[in-house]
Amino acid sequence: MRVVDLIRRKRDSGELTREEIEHLIAAYTRGDVPDYQMSAWLMAVVLRGMTRQETAALTEAMLHSGSVLDFSGLLGKKVDKHSTGGVGDKPSLIIAPIVAAGGLKVPMISGRGLGHSGGTLDKLESIPGFNVNLSLADFRRVLGTCGCALIGQTAEIAPADKKIYALRDVTGTVESPALICASIMSKKLAEGIDALVLDVKTGSGAFMKKIEDAANLAELLVETGKRMGKKVVALLTDMNQPLGRKAGNAMEVVESIEVLSGAGPADLRELCLELAAWMFLLGERVKTLDEGRKLSADLIASGHAREKFREIVGLQGGDMHVVDDPHRLAQARRTLDVTSPADGYISETQCERLGVACVVLGGGREKKEDTIDPAVGLTFHKRIGDSVKRGEPLCTLHYNADARLDEARRLVESAYRIEAEKPGSIPALIHRVIGA
Amino acid sequence: MRVVDLIRRKRDSGELTREEIEHLIAAYTRGDVPDYQMSAWLMAVVLRGMTRQETAALTEAMLHSGSVLDFSGLLGKKVDKHSTGGVGDKPSLIIAPIVAAGGLKVPMISGRGLGHSGGTLDKLESIPGFNVNLSLADFRRVLGTCGCALIGQTAEIAPADKKIYALRDVTGTVESPALICASIMSKKLAEGIDALVLDVKTGSGAFMKKIEDAANLAELLVETGKRMGKKVVALLTDMNQPLGRKAGNAMEVVESIEVLSGAGPADLRELCLELAAWMFLLGERVKTLDEGRKLSADLIASGHAREKFREIVGLQGGDMHVVDDPHRLAQARRTLDVTSPADGYISETQCERLGVACVVLGGGREKKEDTIDPAVGLTFHKRIGDSVKRGEPLCTLHYNADARLDEARRLVESAYRIEAEKPGSIPALIHRVIGA
Repeated sequence: MRVVDLIRRKRDSGELTREEIEHLIAAYTRGDVPDYQMSAWLMAVVLRGMTRQETAALTEAMLHSGSVLDFSGLLGKKVDKHSTGGVGDKPSLIIAPIVAAGGLKVPMISGRGLGHSGGTLDKLESIPGFNVNLSLADFRRVLGTCGCALIGQTAEIAPADKKIYALRDVTGTVESPALICASIMSKKLAEGIDALVLDVKTGSGAFMKKIEDAANLAELLVETGKRMGKKVVALLTDMNQPLGRKAGNAMEVVESIEVLSGAGPADLRELCLELAAWMFLLGERVKTLDEGRKLSADLIASGHAREKFREIVGLQGGDMHVVDDPHRLAQARRTLDVTSPADGYISETQCERLGVACVVLGGGREKKEDTIDPAVGLTFHKRIGDSVKRGEPLCTLHYNADARLDEARRLVESAYRIEAEKPGSIPALIHRVIGA
Repeated sequence: MRVVDLIRRKRDSGELTREEIEHLIAAYTRGDVPDYQMSAWLMAVVLRGMTRQETAALTEAMLHSGSVLDFSGLLGKKVDKHSTGGVGDKPSLIIAPIVAAGGLKVPMISGRGLGHSGGTLDKLESIPGFNVNLSLADFRRVLGTCGCALIGQTAEIAPADKKIYALRDVTGTVESPALICASIMSKKLAEGIDALVLDVKTGSGAFMKKIEDAANLAELLVETGKRMGKKVVALLTDMNQPLGRKAGNAMEVVESIEVLSGAGPADLRELCLELAAWMFLLGERVKTLDEGRKLSADLIASGHAREKFREIVGLQGGDMHVVDDPHRLAQARRTLDVTSPADGYISETQCERLGVACVVLGGGREKKEDTIDPAVGLTFHKRIGDSVKRGEPLCTLHYNADARLDEARRLVESAYRIEAEKPGSIPALIHRVIGA
């Protein structure tokens, strides 16, 4: 089997067999296939696509490039959630403790911020002492003790994905549903889970701007997961505006604690209850989705979910007191309001710009080696459809350094569209459920 | 300018500017752009194509990655010929001396055998002592002395092409008209020529099997050359059967000497007279094509062309006596006839298989490190349209080793199609002239 023949076949829109894909991925992971051949193949995949069979084979090959965790010794179904990312996208921090408090196991392996979107690991690290780099042995111990652990990808988990992801980033081969699917699912299935709830975002603040693209990806993810014997559903959810009222690492932890405490913004709470309900349903903890919603709401109301969060923070070395006193988290020294230029209604937000503004303030990385300022971020005062008066704050910037404040301010200013008429429709929070 | 942005733009069918292409090629040649980015870009080019402007810019960038020879100090127009390759394709050995004997300068940089097609350098090296690896100083000296020199690509000539060609070979990115054009033209234009005659082959023994593909490439080559101020025509010629009666390195030298001596097969002689005539016309040695044909025929009849060949061989270190006594060249020890299985007519040849058979006998390389046996080859007894009797030889294999004789024999057997009826048409030798 010559790698150049596999490249040529894909280039000419041909299909690769499972064995050929396994060979390619294994040889690349070992270092026997050079980067330059893999990148040519990846570009051919981006432009020619892959069949469902090929995508499943690729996912499986990447999954088996490393360890697949086995938590069958732990009682209770193992379930997880994955989001494709957006602005203010913090449900992981809220639903992991809810679902663990409800008796399921949540072995969650998360990522860092990417582009304009934040990352669960960066948010967790804004809690003083919180360690996301647990060994697999510690991961298992924390999971066994409290039903949930939150870590980053380790060297043992899907090393093929790690290598391919780095290559895709620098070769213009990120934008492929098949490659995105294999990357997400190989990591998630390596967690040894029984069920997975996917939160596929669409809209101006998502990676998939168009709903059809997001729906296609969601279907591919669901089908690939099901082929591998997992229970999977995907919620197609809206990212035409930030989720909740806050973006920025420590600020999102604060808002997550608000929701876990029974408060917090309505949209964020609603999405979390829905995602947690699906996790309970797929994890066979409840018989109906409604029962799952009720269980989730009860676990918040009773304080159990919040208590579970405190437990996780403690077991992973973090300062447990932040749960009672969120002011212990880093706070930016200064704020600047961006106000409305006119009376009217918010008709639209260029949501990606709000995410970029947060990165520009220091809340994300533009280069891999950048360090993050956990304190900075944005508070959103208005949502699509809200009325505003001229001079009324739309968004507050929380910042520490002046250097790029102007750039962030202009991004935020240009992100809001104000019109005289109230918009005819406002985006639904959940567009569709796929795979149910 | 980030390379990943150039890759993404081409991936999305966008156009790159001249400056962007120059930057990419220069940075890649320097080693500042890694192979894995270049191969992703090359695959995007294969699948998305390039505009004429982009192709010209790429050609020029590759040309200027190294030295461009300047022979303006030498009297007479500098002209060359390039063939896209095939089986028995030996006109370079014949027309270079004809055209030099006619007073033009022919600074010819040639290649090695590639796949099923032979290479001028390998053929020349079957002449004992012939040195194709002249320094640029010696190249100039030989050219100045006798009006022609025949060498291989040096490190100074189009180093970008050398690096990109090697990468394309192993990344499935050979088949792109734009990349083929830039590769051919960057090397040929580096020769410092005034005019170029292209012999673009089409048919079962050519790289471009379909005449439309060959015509498109020919047009692209001609346009690119003209954009750069050169006189260029392309002859679209037939490669549905071998050119002449012999394939194999030393055997092709023998046949070339036959033509230079006024004999040889009609098709080979005709094509050589035609190509040489075009070189004389573009080189302003004659005013009409007919005059060019006549001059070429006269230079053969007078013995001047043959004498010029002897001179070139001598100046490049080769055994000049082979011209008078071709039996001094290596000859295979054994022969095997492949005979016709039936009475009838040759209706078709799978010409590429004949080329592969020659490689299998040892006349070409399957891997870069393979050594060539100059003696082996094939003699073709029948052409398309010829009648044959059962048991009559179609082709004779000249071989030294038994190891793969059977494989070669089967290839040759399967290459001929015999039918009861005489074919309605036989392929024209020259299909079309482009750019005249």
